[in-house]
Amino acid sequence: MDGNMKIIIDTIWVLITAKMIFFMNLGFAMVEAGFARVKNCANILSKNFVVFAVSSLGFLLIGWGLMFGDGNSFVGLKGLFFAGGPDNSPATGSAYLGVYSAISWAGVPLWAKFFFQLVFCGTAATIVSGAVAERIKYVSFIIFSFIMTTLIYPVVGHWIWGGGWLAGKGFSDFAGSTVVHSVGGWAALAGVLLLGPRFGRYSGGRINAIPGHNLSMATLGTFVLWFGWFGFNPGSTMTADPLAISHVAITTNMSAAAAIMSSTVLSWILIGKPDLGMTLNGCLAGLVAITAPCAFVSVPSSVIIGFAAGILVVLSVIMFDRLRIDDPVGALSVHLVNGIFGTLCVGLFAQDKIAGISCGGSGLFFGGGSGLFLVQLTGVVTVGLYAFTVALAGWWLISAVMGIRVSLREEIDGLDVGEHGNSAYPEFLSRKPAHIAAGFKDK
Amino acid sequence: MDGNMKIIIDTIWVLITAKMIFFMNLGFAMVEAGFARVKNCANILSKNFVVFAVSSLGFLLIGWGLMFGDGNSFVGLKGLFFAGGPDNSPATGSAYLGVYSAISWAGVPLWAKFFFQLVFCGTAATIVSGAVAERIKYVSFIIFSFIMTTLIYPVVGHWIWGGGWLAGKGFSDFAGSTVVHSVGGWAALAGVLLLGPRFGRYSGGRINAIPGHNLSMATLGTFVLWFGWFGFNPGSTMTADPLAISHVAITTNMSAAAAIMSSTVLSWILIGKPDLGMTLNGCLAGLVAITAPCAFVSVPSSVIIGFAAGILVVLSVIMFDRLRIDDPVGALSVHLVNGIFGTLCVGLFAQDKIAGISCGGSGLFFGGGSGLFLVQLTGVVTVGLYAFTVALAGWWLISAVMGIRVSLREEIDGLDVGEHGNSAYPEFLSRKPAHIAAGFKDK
Amino acid sequence: MDGNMKIIIDTIWVLITAKMIFFMNLGFAMVEAGFARVKNCANILSKNFVVFAVSSLGFLLIGWGLMFGDGNSFVGLKGLFFAGGPDNSPATGSAYLGVYSAISWAGVPLWAKFFFQLVFCGTAATIVSGAVAERIKYVSFIIFSFIMTTLIYPVVGHWIWGGGWLAGKGFSDFAGSTVVHSVGGWAALAGVLLLGPRFGRYSGGRINAIPGHNLSMATLGTFVLWFGWFGFNPGSTMTADPLAISHVAITTNMSAAAAIMSSTVLSWILIGKPDLGMTLNGCLAGLVAITAPCAFVSVPSSVIIGFAAGILVVLSVIMFDRLRIDDPVGALSVHLVNGIFGTLCVGLFAQDKIAGISCGGSGLFFGGGSGLFLVQLTGVVTVGLYAFTVALAGWWLISAVMGIRVSLREEIDGLDVGEHGNSAYPEFLSRKPAHIAAGFKDK
Repeated sequence: MDGNMKIIIDTIWVLITAKMIFFMNLGFAMVEAGFARVKNCANILSKNFVVFAVSSLGFLLIGWGLMFGDGNSFVGLKGLFFAGGPDNSPATGSAYLGVYSAISWAGVPLWAKFFFQLVFCGTAATIVSGAVAERIKYVSFIIFSFIMTTLIYPVVGHWIWGGGWLAGKGFSDFAGSTVVHSVGGWAALAGVLLLGPRFGRYSGGRINAIPGHNLSMATLGTFVLWFGWFGFNPGSTMTADPLAISHVAITTNMSAAAAIMSSTVLSWILIGKPDLGMTLNGCLAGLVAITAPCAFVSVPSSVIIGFAAGILVVLSVIMFDRLRIDDPVGALSVHLVNGIFGTLCVGLFAQDKIAGISCGGSGLFFGGGSGLFLVQLTGVVTVGLYAFTVALAGWWLISAVMGIRVSLREEIDGLDVGEHGNSAYPEFLSRKPAHIAAGFKDK
Repeated sequence: MDGNMKIIIDTIWVLITAKMIFFMNLGFAMVEAGFARVKNCANILSKNFVVFAVSSLGFLLIGWGLMFGDGNSFVGLKGLFFAGGPDNSPATGSAYLGVYSAISWAGVPLWAKFFFQLVFCGTAATIVSGAVAERIKYVSFIIFSFIMTTLIYPVVGHWIWGGGWLAGKGFSDFAGSTVVHSVGGWAALAGVLLLGPRFGRYSGGRINAIPGHNLSMATLGTFVLWFGWFGFNPGSTMTADPLAISHVAITTNMSAAAAIMSSTVLSWILIGKPDLGMTLNGCLAGLVAITAPCAFVSVPSSVIIGFAAGILVVLSVIMFDRLRIDDPVGALSVHLVNGIFGTLCVGLFAQDKIAGISCGGSGLFFGGGSGLFLVQLTGVVTVGLYAFTVALAGWWLISAVMGIRVSLREEIDGLDVGEHGNSAYPEFLSRKPAHIAAGFKDK
Repeated sequence: MDGNMKIIIDTIWVLITAKMIFFMNLGFAMVEAGFARVKNCANILSKNFVVFAVSSLGFLLIGWGLMFGDGNSFVGLKGLFFAGGPDNSPATGSAYLGVYSAISWAGVPLWAKFFFQLVFCGTAATIVSGAVAERIKYVSFIIFSFIMTTLIYPVVGHWIWGGGWLAGKGFSDFAGSTVVHSVGGWAALAGVLLLGPRFGRYSGGRINAIPGHNLSMATLGTFVLWFGWFGFNPGSTMTADPLAISHVAITTNMSAAAAIMSSTVLSWILIGKPDLGMTLNGCLAGLVAITAPCAFVSVPSSVIIGFAAGILVVLSVIMFDRLRIDDPVGALSVHLVNGIFGTLCVGLFAQDKIAGISCGGSGLFFGGGSGLFLVQLTGVVTVGLYAFTVALAGWWLISAVMGIRVSLREEIDGLDVGEHGNSAYPEFLSRKPAHIAAGFKDK
């Protein structure tokens, strides 16, 4: 096979899938805004739009180097600024001469590698946005996003994909159930705990549902995310390996499909009606859960994983509500809970080299013993400790310096006017939801 | 040419075009919801979202095997469950050893073939959704979708693309004007006839137009479909043949462009104004009509086909209304009428091997005589008989067991609350359209 | 390297990026409609939808031949109609025998070249739409679009990309800051000057802001455009050159990111709040500005260019308002001003062959002297003179024959009803913005 031709084809594959992952920013924006209220819509759109700009600058400035630069098992130390270290990509293996050895297995130009990794970093950052929506200060979110894309995501990324200590232990996360989704989820959880629930959400001793203002947008966003996931998971090969990318496309899709059905049916049983929000979050849960194991499990296993993820997300949404942890879009249930679940599924369902790529051994259910499962569990716990702790410190610092929550007055009036001087739909007449009217009386 | 490299490139082409076709699910959801009323929006979004999950499970469970498994000329009988039969894809021709011989010409891995065919199956299923909108029971639609993707679509698909009897006769349907669009259309027609028109639609002896609630969504959806069609038609080569895929991209686009102009102008003449709904449906009509002949006709012919399709869809919408057949989004005019028209166009406009691919001979207008046209007509009639009959039986069975139509009370209040306990836009204030207010008085 | 394989891969690259650029039509439609009022929404959607159909027919009929046909240094004269001249693409160099020599360097089939160039032509045409929105007659816009895609865009295109006199001088415009964006901007400016501002926009001696009706749509549209730009710029190689396409993807993204930050911060300073509209237009400005230099400048330079573009667009929006030039969506500030700025940036920031492609020398800031800058300036001025003059003549002619502006009555009532008999959101209750209510009193 012509080496030059292989570089060309792999570069096309990496760039096209990266573009699809970039497009997921639209999906996240529409899901979050659709699940929130009219009065905060412009603020949510702003957050989701600007976060990728911040990620781009942060990852270029230092994040890329911390993640993929040669260094110790904890963090990268070389070629930190502007991806500016020595590098002779697309050379691979022993022909590679540069400071980004950990990703030298990918035979594409440096900027193609950077682009693909940047869109992953951006995804982790944007996950946070949904959970802290409707009360976070705009400037505080921007600053946290910068911390996220420089100090949190790249460090965990180094551990797992940058040749760090978890990679050395044999931890397997094919496309980022842990690296992207649970890290985003932990950072979100830290923010949510510091922020507290939205005004009126748990007033009067009740759990007051706050319905999203636009399910059309939320559905559009979920479709876009599902589409983008066909870049996220199959693209993570970073090489156009026909067998692997075909296999991953199908495991990804079947997990989503099974999760849609199980979440829909379970919400039908528990709530009495098939709730569209649960259907949509079921889909996302199935996608998050299959992200780590997509290349290592069979198609029937992917159906089972998705089915379980759909159950898990519904129960998790109910659980967080009972714990009075207010997450407007269900980001914790989707990304944190299912990010953990998917990571552990590698240890349970893996069939080594089923699509030609090794995860170092098979899982518990397929004769591999508990070894892989325990490594996966170790990764889940340590990543959780690091990401949650640093995120909490970050949020706390921002809180101490400038505050993280808008004033009650602004929250009631809406962040659109308070933070941006905008209104998302200045001509449409809208009403305040009933429970908010009730909320006012609580004052 | 390096065989291995060809497999890689073809797999990239098949997967990327398949992803674009998957994305058409978003297009269908937005067109249908946009053309329907606020009160049924969440229900329509739910139907359009869940239908691809059902299709995925149905096609994996048995549909793929019925369509492409070796068997008789009527249906596939081998390798039925979970695409689990022997298969050594991407081997082709005499090197292929497996039970899916009919698609062994495509030199890509099994799961790539499956993914590409799955998104076609999903399209056929989602076409039904639009025609039965605003009165179908959610559970009944889900069950019919399962029947559609297991017993209807795969059988017709076997006849034409799975080595069945119509393929043997020389029937030509490059990308599915018949296999996907008219089959979807026939199944929709059966449902519509059993369901009857929406409440108030033809009350008072008049034809009461029910305008869609959101033309922004409908336009967005049509753009997404047009985009997706650049996967649908050029991807149907299932191999990256430069000449063919370039040719197909242009015939597809020019047919859409011509249909947009003719439908817009004709609606301008007939209605007095250029109606946006007619412009959008004109585009879709042009796309459906060119789907069968896209690889077999010249670019000027594609302009003529599109022009005629745009005329046809406007007249057809008016005709169905006069027949009191209520199709909220014009799915019958777009997919059934133009699916048939496009299939026949192969028999009229084909210039054999114009883009390097043979359809067995040229059409009536290009010196090929009436042979191909009569084969195409045979396909149209027999597929129509099968698809309509089985769909009618399916709908009837569902109707008998659990009913297919929501109660009048629920229909008037909207399916969002009745079926899902949701409201798509809980904060926006909306009014009931005037004719519906009038409709109430009819009672 | 296998020549045949290279043709296949390049064709895939050209077609996929062309499809992404086609998708930008959706982006433009959503941005424009989102930034305009409810009462004109269906009209704006109609314009943006039909414009690509008109472009397709105009470019097929004659535009392609005028742009790429062999001829003199001013315009193409051979193979004008239906791209019907002799051609043996994908042959390149001395093996090419045909009448489209100027684009014979691209080794892909004729229809692939045509498709890629068509979507650029369509972009230039759709840019005009935004600036003339909310008062232009529908039929007049359609006719102007036909003039644009036959007499204006292809002629300038011939000068620069069709082997014409500016190409001969060494003018460099990698992906169309001038060819597409500033040409679209000049045509828009001519239209805006003839049309005059919208009713009430500058009444009472004040500048009355007219907020867009749907920032969700505008944000969606901007994301789609950003995504499409990853086709627009990297695709302009028309060959899958790994180094170049990776480099261009990153310069494109970093310019957008920097422009988002600078426009957001500057609007924060000048207006007191970070206005979402400025953030979105900042992004587009960064993308337009990097379009000409994307392959010729370093990544750090792209950050600087983007940063400046974000400043420029905010100041420009304010300037046009002070000049009483009413541009509802900021198209002039985005496409004209930053199209010019980006073109000049080649003369300032170029580092020849930085991504392997030559622009004939380096720019002023990188030791190349003022030569390239002066050529770029020459191009900016002459293209401006031609495009503005012909566009003004075109608009004036249409104005004389049939008028270009709707009646005041129709403008106040909205173009949706007047031009189309449609309403974009017939069920949502909306109010007239306050300043328009004030506007009525001015009468």
